[in-house]
Amino acid sequence: MADTPIRFGIIGCAEIARRVSRAILLAPNATLSAIASRSLDKAANFAKANGFPPEAKVYGSYESLLDDPDVDAVYLPLPTSLHLKWAVLTAQKKKHLLLEKPVALNVAEFDQILKACDENGVQIMDGTMWVHHPRTQKMKEFLDDKERFGQLKTVHSCFTYFAPPEFFQNNIRVKPDLDTLGALGDAGWYGIRSILWAADYELPKTVTALRGPVVNEEGLILDCGASLHWEDGKTATFNCSFLSNLTMNITAIGTFGTLHLTDFIIPYQEHEASYTTSSKARYNELGTGWVPIPSEHNVNVDLPQEACMVREFAGLVGNIKKNGAQPDNKWPTISRKTQLVVDAVNASVEKGFEPVEIVS
Amino acid sequence: MADTPIRFGIIGCAEIARRVSRAILLAPNATLSAIASRSLDKAANFAKANGFPPEAKVYGSYESLLDDPDVDAVYLPLPTSLHLKWAVLTAQKKKHLLLEKPVALNVAEFDQILKACDENGVQIMDGTMWVHHPRTQKMKEFLDDKERFGQLKTVHSCFTYFAPPEFFQNNIRVKPDLDTLGALGDAGWYGIRSILWAADYELPKTVTALRGPVVNEEGLILDCGASLHWEDGKTATFNCSFLSNLTMNITAIGTFGTLHLTDFIIPYQEHEASYTTSSKARYNELGTGWVPIPSEHNVNVDLPQEACMVREFAGLVGNIKKNGAQPDNKWPTISRKTQLVVDAVNASVEKGFEPVEIVS
Repeated sequence: MADTPIRFGIIGCAEIARRVSRAILLAPNATLSAIASRSLDKAANFAKANGFPPEAKVYGSYESLLDDPDVDAVYLPLPTSLHLKWAVLTAQKKKHLLLEKPVALNVAEFDQILKACDENGVQIMDGTMWVHHPRTQKMKEFLDDKERFGQLKTVHSCFTYFAPPEFFQNNIRVKPDLDTLGALGDAGWYGIRSILWAADYELPKTVTALRGPVVNEEGLILDCGASLHWEDGKTATFNCSFLSNLTMNITAIGTFGTLHLTDFIIPYQEHEASYTTSSKARYNELGTGWVPIPSEHNVNVDLPQEACMVREFAGLVGNIKKNGAQPDNKWPTISRKTQLVVDAVNASVEKGFEPVEIVS
Repeated sequence: MADTPIRFGIIGCAEIARRVSRAILLAPNATLSAIASRSLDKAANFAKANGFPPEAKVYGSYESLLDDPDVDAVYLPLPTSLHLKWAVLTAQKKKHLLLEKPVALNVAEFDQILKACDENGVQIMDGTMWVHHPRTQKMKEFLDDKERFGQLKTVHSCFTYFAPPEFFQNNIRVKPDLDTLGALGDAGWYGIRSILWAADYELPKTVTALRGPVVNEEGLILDCGASLHWEDGKTATFNCSFLSNLTMNITAIGTFGTLHLTDFIIPYQEHEASYTTSSKARYNELGTGWVPIPSEHNVNVDLPQEACMVREFAGLVGNIKKNGAQPDNKWPTISRKTQLVVDAVNASVEKGFEPVEIVS
């Protein structure tokens, strides 16, 4: 007997909700149950355009979706400044919570969300998709290999995209009443997460913003970078921007190996994804070439990364719902660490690029 | 009638001199004329092992090579601390100078070398090979393309290699009496040069060393990084290390384009080399892939990059020798800028990672 799928409600018709709707439809253990917008028409149009099943409910207010007993879990892609209010309310309504990133405006807010989830026994996970891609697991096996990769020494990560002029007028990411984190919370979130991922989620000791961040008239970051430094000597740098061509690289260098990829957040193609590894590379005898040349690895994708994310989340929810398990702590811990580093970069910018110690 | 080739003498039998000897043999306008070592046997063995023509002279002292009227130009791969003395003497002996990198221990020393070259009318060029690779010119065309690449926003470059234990005992690069720059002057030189290259050799306004450099017992840098910042908002980061797997990447991101390669100093193979460009990349409609996917470009290599370097240098020397031209200022200016940034990184480390202004 197949398990009953976890029933998802979506609050807000954000662009990203289209992809997550499709992911919920694709995930074997999830189903689309409801959509809410402040406009009933908008919600109805969204449901129609995104393949919601006919029995899915359409709400003209977020509250009414949260009161629906047929909703197990809520996907929340609202602007960041609204996360605290709606995430806490979702938890209080005993709905499990798939929360879009950045999870909050700062870690103090996120702690309030975590507290509400904890008190109400609901699962929380953030919407960072790429960590659920099957490629990510393969790459992690390489990083964990003491023979092939050795000890991690440095990571560089970047995520930039060139936003069109209308973005700077209208997008929620550059409006201080909707989001105070700008490119740091949006693009920077991924760079930071990738660095923490490569470092086995060990928090750095200090975070230092790089000089030269670009801010808009309202003080929101449009482009910035930071360097991270660990107690054991590991280092990392990242940059993030709304002002440069779409680029998303991770280079993780260990004593013996190098991991490299250039499409870590959204793979170039959905059905397969690749990455490159190099191990114990050296020059040939005369120094005119490499031995060995780095190798490319391809990973076939049965389920798109966002559907893998939904499947993972729905699995945890199912385990609570059906088996009486406790909410899993792994994903919220990772979200919180990511937010801590986001906050530290912001603090370092405010302190004139002084290093900021991370206190977890 | 073919021009008479420029006659090279080599001072010191360093490992890198093997490759440059071969390059001189391969370059159409150069010939190997003499080799000097402090040991005559060593010089003789080097000449024999590296295909010197039978008429090439073998010297047991550097001075005697410099006094040889049949030597037009000298390739100087001595340890960095010896550059000042021997480069100045080479110039005073009216020999043109191909000087291994880093060009000096600091820019004050390099200015003395430049002064000697200037006073004696000799050409100087440093031994950075990759800038002479035909691929480099192709990549520069992309960076210069305002339509495809736009305005440069940020560059990240790294060059690391994992040195074996004996390196840390014996190599000239980690001996403070032979070289005070360690990984910064060796591996870091390339990262800095690549950044300056991408920035059209415009010097940054400030250079800030990243926290966490690794130094040996004698205080020499084994691993470090820095961020660079330009007046117009451009930024760059690099790291360099003797402690991590062989890795050499450049990622240069402009408003509209991205240039990327992972073997910039020594291409994986000698006969061809590749790089990747992406232009106006965006997501597909649902955000599940890229349009367009970055494209890979292959460049066939007729002459190895080090032979292209020798050809370029010998061409400048020939122009002086045969046409009475003045020494060309392009290459020494680039060397000096590179050294200025090396010095600034060092100064920033010494000042506790404070930003250092570049004064050219």
